[in-house]
Amino acid sequence: MSKIQLVMGIDVGGTNTAFGFVDRKGKLIYDASLPTKAELDARQLFERIFNAANKSFKKFEKKYELVGIGIGAPNANYYKGTVEKPPNLNWGKVNVVKLIKEFSDLPVVITNDANAAALGEMIFGAAKGMKNFIVITLGTGLGSGIVVDGNLVYGSDGFAGELGHTTYDPNGRLCGCGRLGCLETYASATGIKRTALELMAKYPYPSSLRKLNCEKLSAKDIYNAAVKGDKIALEAFDYTAKALGFKLADTVVHLSPEAIILYGGLALAGDLIIKPTKKYMERQMLNIFKNKVKIIPSALPGKGAGIMGAAALIWNELEKI
Amino acid sequence: MSKIQLVMGIDVGGTNTAFGFVDRKGKLIYDASLPTKAELDARQLFERIFNAANKSFKKFEKKYELVGIGIGAPNANYYKGTVEKPPNLNWGKVNVVKLIKEFSDLPVVITNDANAAALGEMIFGAAKGMKNFIVITLGTGLGSGIVVDGNLVYGSDGFAGELGHTTYDPNGRLCGCGRLGCLETYASATGIKRTALELMAKYPYPSSLRKLNCEKLSAKDIYNAAVKGDKIALEAFDYTAKALGFKLADTVVHLSPEAIILYGGLALAGDLIIKPTKKYMERQMLNIFKNKVKIIPSALPGKGAGIMGAAALIWNELEKI
Repeated sequence: MSKIQLVMGIDVGGTNTAFGFVDRKGKLIYDASLPTKAELDARQLFERIFNAANKSFKKFEKKYELVGIGIGAPNANYYKGTVEKPPNLNWGKVNVVKLIKEFSDLPVVITNDANAAALGEMIFGAAKGMKNFIVITLGTGLGSGIVVDGNLVYGSDGFAGELGHTTYDPNGRLCGCGRLGCLETYASATGIKRTALELMAKYPYPSSLRKLNCEKLSAKDIYNAAVKGDKIALEAFDYTAKALGFKLADTVVHLSPEAIILYGGLALAGDLIIKPTKKYMERQMLNIFKNKVKIIPSALPGKGAGIMGAAALIWNELEKI
Repeated sequence: MSKIQLVMGIDVGGTNTAFGFVDRKGKLIYDASLPTKAELDARQLFERIFNAANKSFKKFEKKYELVGIGIGAPNANYYKGTVEKPPNLNWGKVNVVKLIKEFSDLPVVITNDANAAALGEMIFGAAKGMKNFIVITLGTGLGSGIVVDGNLVYGSDGFAGELGHTTYDPNGRLCGCGRLGCLETYASATGIKRTALELMAKYPYPSSLRKLNCEKLSAKDIYNAAVKGDKIALEAFDYTAKALGFKLADTVVHLSPEAIILYGGLALAGDLIIKPTKKYMERQMLNIFKNKVKIIPSALPGKGAGIMGAAALIWNELEKI
């Protein structure tokens, strides 16, 4: 009996790195995660990942075979196989595809986490059957994966799809990239925290958020307060959605997507973020695009979505061959 | 002896419509133009065009044969073959591809003028050999044609590439589309006129432009004044370039193009517009894209460029079959 094919998806994050085994239909057979240890180099991370993965795979090897490895990582370059100066990892520039050869002979592909998410949605999630769509990842920052005619847009150098660094307010918030007013300083888990602080400064309304530690205050805290009707928290979601919706109207005139899919931590707020984002996007929209572009939530599983994206990347690649 | 193949390119403008015969190498064998008569319907225009074209072609028919018709027109939809409510033509919604069947049996393709310009640059002009680039047409408005991996981006509905309606200033100038601060209200032949008026209001400097009729003042007048060192005119170019460069930095993070090609009336100002646009774009650029993206002028002939674009469109289509 021939074995069932699986791929390994690896989702590299600033805090934790998750890996798992995924079949062609998108079933996540096994997953686990390890602390990334951002201060160490890339080799040490992948050594630990492959040790753990090889061990875990033993119980599957009778029935399954591994046929490829997909990796989603910050600042990854699909063309070169590299990760270049990721903001939250002390890696410098490293050729990950070459590095992995030390641990495995399987085909390896890498792309940034947002592009992996876009492929995950296209192959297993909310964008099944779509040819033109955009995935916006709302995590610590704002990432994006753009699909045109069924293919990811990499651009001339592999770095296309950095919508987090479109400018929302040229005199606005200082971004980690050194510029002012980037969209991700407003529309991201970090952005909504900054907004909550700004709104607590602006308005005298009581808010449960005022009782929290300024630094530790999280997007989740703001969500929890918003569902209880906290005025500051609700306003923070509205403000976030306004920035995002406003800039998405710009994105739509570039690409005319069928849908925009919101993915990642902040997107889990569901209608609290999706409804006002749609409202502000429509308000700003050029007539010919009005009421055409859906905004929908990710349909990948909350936990394991990054692994699914990385797995979709390699499945997509294996099918090109 | 077999005849040499030619296509007919038609470039529909608000004032004049040009047509011509172009060979596969981009040689414009013959061209002519007629007043569009924007107040009349589409049939009347194409009837006059085909009457004139059939007559003109007589002297070529021994040596050449026509194999297709490409049309560039405002608000044209490649997928549907339609032109929908063009701003400067009293056409309403019309299926041009179907209409043309009354006048010719040849294959017909239509797209908007900016997309035609992009194909013209790719096949005959400044983007030869490029796979990822953007053409910005700076005429009465600002149009754009986006090429990703060697293909025009049409998006889900055929209307992708409306960069003229990205927002430069949300509290800014009223646009023909009804919104405020669209890029084309700043970066276009009309935009630079508005800028010149604004600068004449703002500064007390003497300027040769002050002697002109406010309404008739043209981008060409501003160019002529600028080359003579007129302070208002020079400032108007700088201001135009600032808006364009600023927004192009947003476009680059979407698409990571190899080059941005400036096309059309205002682009003829050459370094007066290209140099400051590049400067402002770089100033606003996300680090990973700095000093990577060229801004270059169109390499299509000034007169006949629209015909060449329309011809490139149909040549490109004929080769897909």
